[in-house]
Amino acid sequence: MTSTEIPFLEACRGQVPATTPIWIMRQAGRILQPYRELRQHHGSISTLFNTPELATEITLMPIEMHGVDAAILFTDLVTPLAALGCEYTYAPGPVFSSPTRTAADIAALRPVVPEEDLGFVLETVRMVRRALPPSIPLIGYAGAPFTLATWIVQGGSSKDFPAFRGMIHKEPALAHQLLDKLSDLVADFLQAQIKAGAQAVQLFDTSVGLLSPSQFGEFALPYLQRICARIAPLNTPIIYFPLAANHNFPHFKQVGADVLGLDWRIGIKQAQTQFDNRMPFQGNLDPCVLYGSEESIINEAHRILQQAKGHPHIFNLGHGVFPDTPYENVKLLVDTVHQFAGK
Amino acid sequence: MTSTEIPFLEACRGQVPATTPIWIMRQAGRILQPYRELRQHHGSISTLFNTPELATEITLMPIEMHGVDAAILFTDLVTPLAALGCEYTYAPGPVFSSPTRTAADIAALRPVVPEEDLGFVLETVRMVRRALPPSIPLIGYAGAPFTLATWIVQGGSSKDFPAFRGMIHKEPALAHQLLDKLSDLVADFLQAQIKAGAQAVQLFDTSVGLLSPSQFGEFALPYLQRICARIAPLNTPIIYFPLAANHNFPHFKQVGADVLGLDWRIGIKQAQTQFDNRMPFQGNLDPCVLYGSEESIINEAHRILQQAKGHPHIFNLGHGVFPDTPYENVKLLVDTVHQFAGK
Repeated sequence: MTSTEIPFLEACRGQVPATTPIWIMRQAGRILQPYRELRQHHGSISTLFNTPELATEITLMPIEMHGVDAAILFTDLVTPLAALGCEYTYAPGPVFSSPTRTAADIAALRPVVPEEDLGFVLETVRMVRRALPPSIPLIGYAGAPFTLATWIVQGGSSKDFPAFRGMIHKEPALAHQLLDKLSDLVADFLQAQIKAGAQAVQLFDTSVGLLSPSQFGEFALPYLQRICARIAPLNTPIIYFPLAANHNFPHFKQVGADVLGLDWRIGIKQAQTQFDNRMPFQGNLDPCVLYGSEESIINEAHRILQQAKGHPHIFNLGHGVFPDTPYENVKLLVDTVHQFAGK
Repeated sequence: MTSTEIPFLEACRGQVPATTPIWIMRQAGRILQPYRELRQHHGSISTLFNTPELATEITLMPIEMHGVDAAILFTDLVTPLAALGCEYTYAPGPVFSSPTRTAADIAALRPVVPEEDLGFVLETVRMVRRALPPSIPLIGYAGAPFTLATWIVQGGSSKDFPAFRGMIHKEPALAHQLLDKLSDLVADFLQAQIKAGAQAVQLFDTSVGLLSPSQFGEFALPYLQRICARIAPLNTPIIYFPLAANHNFPHFKQVGADVLGLDWRIGIKQAQTQFDNRMPFQGNLDPCVLYGSEESIINEAHRILQQAKGHPHIFNLGHGVFPDTPYENVKLLVDTVHQFAGK
């Protein structure tokens, strides 16, 4: 099987594979019994993120268990922020010991050399790549700059992330300084993941739905474009996943990504009509469908597959799988997508 | 001043008042020093919601302090749920003692007679109405059925509310039973508020952004329509405020509300182009603008006022004011909106 025959990579390149590939956001995590055992055994989740042998084991779990078509690096959105000097603990989500809010805080962020400061992540990439069969690509992972900024300025999770959203109005120049540093971090980190063996990368922008179209144009788009331009020479597909941001949809074609991740709140047909090109889509089953009956899971999966027929498409959920999702329903979804081609 | 000369009510009726009226979501609450003192003095927030004299005092505070053009009843989204038999405490947000998840749980929800079971709220409406000058209308308040369902099925706050979203896939008939009961509650409660003296009512749908367009059509729209149809004979304007739901925008004209509350993520011009009628709009300043400089507050307010010129418009934020917003900035916003007409 050459790389162009790997369905996931074919779809990333804008081709329509014979069988629609599928992977599932948060496929390597709490839905898996072996993961929960590992987590209990090691106590702290940081140990799982920061130990290459454990992160490798977790990254590989869903490949055999679900039969998905791609692996995604088991790491956390906040992992690279520790290298900047932002300390946090899990309680249970990340809580930063002090939020990054002032000019002095931002000036104090350390320059990051991924090979030195995030070597354990790159070592995981290399270990996973060696362990995976050649037919299963590995997707690298980073948060997008706006999303990372919302976390470190807030100092933890939030529905509204008012701290960084306030900064963009109160001290826009400072907000841009922070986004500038975070963009360099993300571009360097993703480049290093690709050099270590990642065959695609996904930029998660889970907070970006909080921005209005004009705010997106000023505080998200230029930084996403810069990152995509820095990755472009490496000839490795970039998937951009903006959550809850369909009000900004027309802007997404300018980002420079190769694949657009859709959340469940937009129909694939509607997404197609808003783009004048054939940008590949990834998504977009409502994760809550996986709480439903077998029949509803199959029907909803078929509905999406029908809509995407003839379009380059990677099946996925529209957001991460919920931890309490019945495992057999995830397996049913993967099988349903794989069996669809024959219909 | 006759009722048609009250700017807020003129705008609700589709007219363009000489001066744009303004009120602010969560205007009666933690941004006000006298509120914080009252809260500290009485300890529990339930006491403030459930004691007509205190709720009246709080409802009236922003009228004098900010100079806003309408009062909104100080009550909580979950207040009417207690009458159904759903018990909760504040920690600090509402946490239900047991979530409503099974057919038996839903069957056990008690029928509510607002005059008996929610009399303290109606007493607040009457007291506020007596205390307010005739030029200041009082807006009644209820959560929309989908939003109320997400809260009682989850049993508390959540970013994603997976419990009720799972129920709509797993047991859709049960989900409809619950929405049915909640819709009757909301319609009865709003009718009672209107009979007690509320001159407009706002339906808050803060969770509805989680629904895809087809889910909105099935699990939100018919219930909203039923409520609006039940209110229509009372000839009292209904404001529908869906949060983070601009992907469902084309459906909103079918709801049957008189005014659409816009969150900050859609431009007023864009909202106008999506509606073929002249539905009045309420909104839509990003609440985070109020963390910014005087200049940026004035500029952003003017931008919205310019866009809405000639259209029936009630100025408001695009979501509730954040508790740590500088008080003087709220005052500046109100003055800026009032002074705009002369420009």
